[in-house]
Amino acid sequence: MLLGCRSSRCEQEEGALEQLVGAQRFRVTSSGWFCPAPAPLPCQPWKGTSGQRLCALPSPQPHREAPAPLVLHRGHDHCTVAEPDLLKACAGADILLFVVPHQFISQVCDQLKGHMKKDAVGVSLIKGVDEGPDGLRLISDIIHEKLGIEMSVLMGANLANEVAEEKFCETTIGCKNIQHGQTLKELMQTPNFRVTVVQDTDTVEICGALKNVVAVGAGFCDGLGYGDNTKAAVIRLGLMEMIAFAKLFCKGPVASSTFLESCGVADLITTCYGGRNRKVAEAFARTGKTIEQLEKEILNGQKVQGPPTSAELHRILKAKNMVDKFPLFTAVYQICYEGKPVTDVIKCLQNHPEHM
Amino acid sequence: MLLGCRSSRCEQEEGALEQLVGAQRFRVTSSGWFCPAPAPLPCQPWKGTSGQRLCALPSPQPHREAPAPLVLHRGHDHCTVAEPDLLKACAGADILLFVVPHQFISQVCDQLKGHMKKDAVGVSLIKGVDEGPDGLRLISDIIHEKLGIEMSVLMGANLANEVAEEKFCETTIGCKNIQHGQTLKELMQTPNFRVTVVQDTDTVEICGALKNVVAVGAGFCDGLGYGDNTKAAVIRLGLMEMIAFAKLFCKGPVASSTFLESCGVADLITTCYGGRNRKVAEAFARTGKTIEQLEKEILNGQKVQGPPTSAELHRILKAKNMVDKFPLFTAVYQICYEGKPVTDVIKCLQNHPEHM
Repeated sequence: MLLGCRSSRCEQEEGALEQLVGAQRFRVTSSGWFCPAPAPLPCQPWKGTSGQRLCALPSPQPHREAPAPLVLHRGHDHCTVAEPDLLKACAGADILLFVVPHQFISQVCDQLKGHMKKDAVGVSLIKGVDEGPDGLRLISDIIHEKLGIEMSVLMGANLANEVAEEKFCETTIGCKNIQHGQTLKELMQTPNFRVTVVQDTDTVEICGALKNVVAVGAGFCDGLGYGDNTKAAVIRLGLMEMIAFAKLFCKGPVASSTFLESCGVADLITTCYGGRNRKVAEAFARTGKTIEQLEKEILNGQKVQGPPTSAELHRILKAKNMVDKFPLFTAVYQICYEGKPVTDVIKCLQNHPEHM
Repeated sequence: MLLGCRSSRCEQEEGALEQLVGAQRFRVTSSGWFCPAPAPLPCQPWKGTSGQRLCALPSPQPHREAPAPLVLHRGHDHCTVAEPDLLKACAGADILLFVVPHQFISQVCDQLKGHMKKDAVGVSLIKGVDEGPDGLRLISDIIHEKLGIEMSVLMGANLANEVAEEKFCETTIGCKNIQHGQTLKELMQTPNFRVTVVQDTDTVEICGALKNVVAVGAGFCDGLGYGDNTKAAVIRLGLMEMIAFAKLFCKGPVASSTFLESCGVADLITTCYGGRNRKVAEAFARTGKTIEQLEKEILNGQKVQGPPTSAELHRILKAKNMVDKFPLFTAVYQICYEGKPVTDVIKCLQNHPEHM
């Protein structure tokens, strides 16, 4: 079994995983590698070179730079090794984990095309959606279209630094193939990283994008000084809009039960209480500064996904004439992009279709 | 339309409602009356006398004393009036809201028996369960058995002080009779108090008891210094145990969708982030003091419901030989009552049936 991946910069805030490959554990975020660790270590991204044992590396400073084609590879002696040549590393791969920032995914796939095993299985850990000519495009669909491989996804309440500290958490794998789902689970589950597998992969993946829009709404409420009741209502109504949107958008079946998995309600809660979309939205409501300004001030230039995702959703909902059915998604869009007052986030909920 | 009720002491922390009866608003918590208010007022419990208009009353101090049979009554001029004689007030009542602390419910029902309209409809706002010879007993079942009236329930993420401040929130009415459910919704819904109605009343009611057990688990995690991932996992696994327990316990149908209502996931979130069960459990984990001691120190002697409810659950699960299927509920019980270390709350989750 070989795990091929690609990485760019260290991003400690989201998407970290702790993985078990045979007897070898290593850690990975959505866009940065971490060294494997027999004992908990502080997050240390790593600039590896070909063949170097990851378990032996020290790296005192976070590594922020342009994407470099680092590939993790399990070596003969059960140590994970790094292979800087993407094609070489992936040539014999049975399973590929895609953890590159979503803006680089097309480029990576173009490089990989024709250089992989035909029956390789891909797993996308990438949270986010892409724009397509007809609205949203799932990242796993892009990979599948470009490489023709079977795609699964892995999403959940997995803030990176906490996973790296081996604090107990759960995740959800969306995998259409039951047998492959079981294999992925066996590979990845550890005592503190618990896995459930569901079959509606699109639902699992779209949750990771939609939750950020809800978190913006939750942040607005925090900024306006509302309390626990209101925030719980926003989270719940947001969840209901997530379910309704998934049923509208996804081509395959959408099980309501999937929203009760880690990728659904758990990730949503974490994002609405601890995430950066919430944080920026709270500051937006309190200060009146622009999102861009707050990204610079609060996130050191990192981007929040909630506002642009709300714009994508709005385009789709408008085209389908269904704006009225998604008052929270719509309010987030209008507040972020059309100058509507932040207080509209509550006004819009007072006539929510859920209560009609 | 007349609303008959009974009240004892002011309890600002849970179960407050703002209700619309015709043109007349008044507020009520699970165990205390509040004056009606054209504009937001601080919560002011009230000692009324017969015929007095509630809208005119001042009450500077919380009123804490033994239960007194206060009854709210809508007068001829659309002002709510108080009637201290329980039987007189309830004689013509079409709808009765039960908001008395659950330890007094039998006594109130015994007084009411034979003195009410036969087709009166009861709505219980009482959060909590009672002990019966065969384990848990729902409060609405006790009322129904004693009075023979149709019972509905109302539960949700409704922290009293926030409802009183007219901050936006949602609630859930559980009502088997669709037409009555619609009537109750029309009576109670306001722009900032939004109502959804479902038919599986037992599910709605049991949620209000079970969430407190989950909140104790969440508080333990906070006390142990775990982060957002772990807490989200505890809340989600707690929700899954709530669903499984409801399916085991409730006589009628249990819809999974009801757990996505305010009485389910929303009330659970609020309780796990803001409630007193969480608070006491966090202190329990940090200090090692007993629950009783912490109730005195932190809650001024008020009781937390989570630990005793976990004991009730444990008795039932043991009798049904199903302890293993509910590791979180069981861990909470064993930590609170059997001297198990608080760290067991995580250990128990590492082999949760959800991940098998």
